[in-house]
Amino acid sequence: MEMESEIKNEGVFYRNWGWFKALSGKLGTKIVDFTRKIKKLGRDDPRRIIHSLKFGLALTLVSLIYYFEPLYKGFGNSAMWAILTVIVVFEFSVGATLGRGLNRGLATLVAGALGFGAHYLASLAGEKGEPILLGLFVFLLAGVVTFVRFFPRLKARYDYGLLIFMLTFCLVSISGYREDEILEMAHQRVSTILIGSSTSVFICLFVFPVWAGDDLHNLVASNVEKLGSFLEGFGVEYFKISGDSKESNNTFMDDYKSVLNSKQSEECLANFARWEPCHGQFRFRHPWKQYLKIGSLTRQCAYRIEPLNGYFNSEIQIPAEFRSKIQEACTNMSLESGKALKELASAIKAMTPPSSVTPHIVKSKDAANNLISLLRSGFCKEIDLLEVIPAVTVASLLVDAVSCTEKIAESINELASLAHFQNVEPMVEAEKPKLLHQETIPPCCGVNEPHHVITIDQLSPKLP
Amino acid sequence: MEMESEIKNEGVFYRNWGWFKALSGKLGTKIVDFTRKIKKLGRDDPRRIIHSLKFGLALTLVSLIYYFEPLYKGFGNSAMWAILTVIVVFEFSVGATLGRGLNRGLATLVAGALGFGAHYLASLAGEKGEPILLGLFVFLLAGVVTFVRFFPRLKARYDYGLLIFMLTFCLVSISGYREDEILEMAHQRVSTILIGSSTSVFICLFVFPVWAGDDLHNLVASNVEKLGSFLEGFGVEYFKISGDSKESNNTFMDDYKSVLNSKQSEECLANFARWEPCHGQFRFRHPWKQYLKIGSLTRQCAYRIEPLNGYFNSEIQIPAEFRSKIQEACTNMSLESGKALKELASAIKAMTPPSSVTPHIVKSKDAANNLISLLRSGFCKEIDLLEVIPAVTVASLLVDAVSCTEKIAESINELASLAHFQNVEPMVEAEKPKLLHQETIPPCCGVNEPHHVITIDQLSPKLP
Repeated sequence: MEMESEIKNEGVFYRNWGWFKALSGKLGTKIVDFTRKIKKLGRDDPRRIIHSLKFGLALTLVSLIYYFEPLYKGFGNSAMWAILTVIVVFEFSVGATLGRGLNRGLATLVAGALGFGAHYLASLAGEKGEPILLGLFVFLLAGVVTFVRFFPRLKARYDYGLLIFMLTFCLVSISGYREDEILEMAHQRVSTILIGSSTSVFICLFVFPVWAGDDLHNLVASNVEKLGSFLEGFGVEYFKISGDSKESNNTFMDDYKSVLNSKQSEECLANFARWEPCHGQFRFRHPWKQYLKIGSLTRQCAYRIEPLNGYFNSEIQIPAEFRSKIQEACTNMSLESGKALKELASAIKAMTPPSSVTPHIVKSKDAANNLISLLRSGFCKEIDLLEVIPAVTVASLLVDAVSCTEKIAESINELASLAHFQNVEPMVEAEKPKLLHQETIPPCCGVNEPHHVITIDQLSPKLP
Repeated sequence: MEMESEIKNEGVFYRNWGWFKALSGKLGTKIVDFTRKIKKLGRDDPRRIIHSLKFGLALTLVSLIYYFEPLYKGFGNSAMWAILTVIVVFEFSVGATLGRGLNRGLATLVAGALGFGAHYLASLAGEKGEPILLGLFVFLLAGVVTFVRFFPRLKARYDYGLLIFMLTFCLVSISGYREDEILEMAHQRVSTILIGSSTSVFICLFVFPVWAGDDLHNLVASNVEKLGSFLEGFGVEYFKISGDSKESNNTFMDDYKSVLNSKQSEECLANFARWEPCHGQFRFRHPWKQYLKIGSLTRQCAYRIEPLNGYFNSEIQIPAEFRSKIQEACTNMSLESGKALKELASAIKAMTPPSSVTPHIVKSKDAANNLISLLRSGFCKEIDLLEVIPAVTVASLLVDAVSCTEKIAESINELASLAHFQNVEPMVEAEKPKLLHQETIPPCCGVNEPHHVITIDQLSPKLP
């Protein structure tokens, strides 16, 4: 009996031990997973760690008001507004912080004055009329400001200010204080808000500042670079004979996907960048809007690349004969426009005029012309249309990509001249050599009917 | 002299009058422009006007605390927290308001308790140690919470809560009050915050509620519908003979462009929708995630349509002979997949299983098969590849669109079964008739080499 119960006990112990081991193992992997995520978050952008430390510093500095007896006695309960201000104003980038700080400061001042006026007006209406009048004021102002917040342009830049405007107006106008008390309170609050705002702005601006303008500049450049990397690799990989290890090192081929959804972050950064003072190579009125234009053209190009990527993973074989004929032209189109985009990206990064891009664009257009000449040479008569459809579609989309690249180059050139990048050369002329662009090429096996005449521009679809 | 000066005066008068007229004219047009914008904003979504009125109502209700003497005496200075809460918690949709309200409430409670603990702990360290310890606590907590806010998933759902958490912790822990004073103040604040939150939630929930879930549901449906409208119109318009007025009524052709950048708003609405209770036809655990999947597939389809749209505006002529051959198949592909998408959209809207879609998908795939048969019939030998490249590319992209449509239909079917739409029929089987999908079609003019065998699936690129 004893032995039996001992065995039983041992069994229970082992079962529990197993359960405990499984649980602790699960918990362990979860913790390991979480720490890995934290590490990744920090490694991806070390500025996040610095920002967290800066935020802690700002908050600790402002909370000193509470510890210094004379300061605290001066501000009293209003000291909390300094803490509140730091928490809502301190943002990741200088532009965002400045924008919020200015919004908060201006809105507080204007709404405070307006609220004071409303309070005075209502007090004239007697004891019974006062709450009715004040209620009406609050209702009207809240309604109108809330509606105004729906305007997309106002929402993007002044949303926070409008919120603070409503808040301050309500607090000042309906407070039960006498006018002289309001003035005293207003003085305290404005001082503490100023302390909070200036601490935030000071630390954000002078301790490892993060510039939204820099981020926008780098984001746009890296997006152009991603498309360049794709195109540079695509042509060679797609027209490889399938025996060659296609899966070798094309993980970078998916990088461009982030470009597809970059609109919102670009617009957000551009809004922040407008608040920023001149810094580094960026002057006061840096043409931030032009970055949005480049970003939009980059996305246009990415939309062309998305179907191309689909064909890249397709298993269908291009007939060897057809491939060998168009391979060189297509590979060159892809390679050269990829190189052009990469050059453009590094020109943006270095803030130099993209003069070294012209040869690549010319070569990519040459390649497109070569493809057209090849197709009209008549060899197409021997091939089977059905089999070459994917290859033809790829070639056609590549021609699109070439014209997209040209448009991106034009817009970056515009940026270079607007932002006074050094040594801007008139590249636009060089980009459009008449021979390549305006010559009409007669169709390969047709008669010279005027409506049959084809150019690169016609072959590629119109971009908006 | 007098006459001269009179003429001069008249001249000055007329000049000033002209300047005044020009200025007032400019001002007038600006005002007219502005009122037109306001009207448009209200007409586009009348719920905006209602929301503004609701917001005014909530704020006026909460400000009653100030007018009722007994209430105001009870809360004192803390009454302002009710107003502050309404201003930051009241949002457009129920989900957003509930999310913010819950975030605020929970964060305040937890951070209040933690702050109280920190305050007590620090007070044990003596007069000199207290501020140092408290400063350390604030620095550490602010740093850690700020870093945690960078996690994308936490930022999407709990960002506001984390902000309030920091704020409350700081205010409670470093306040110079004694413990019993803190408890009294905490009681007042929690009550006023509860009043503000519950007023906001009550009005948002019961006065013309705006549901984020409804908005997401309608957005996804209308996006699918926009693609449908484009495809329905595209085939017919593209293969029209150019004499026929191409520009007639194709303004709807650009509607799909809003789909390209819909990712962020869909994700935002899905996050809000998760906070919402069951309402209308939406149960408690409605599969909101599935909408994001449908949205992502819809964007994939839109990326295919974007290059198609480019070809639509192209001026190049398709050779009449080639057009007449492929016109029917291509038009049918486009028309039927467009119809299928529109049916799918109306099925989502009506929350019924999309059973009427199957015939359209079968027809669109039939058309794709017809195109393949046509191309292998050998007529392609007589045409000039260069001239037909745009048409071939269009056909190829249309085949892509057909397979995209099928994928969208599958995901909407999944939604229908997950969300228990009424009478879900097993459509997936019907969608993939073996004859259409798995039959391998020998190439048109080649030998039966195994690697030359082509199917629709192979012809269209792989979608992720």
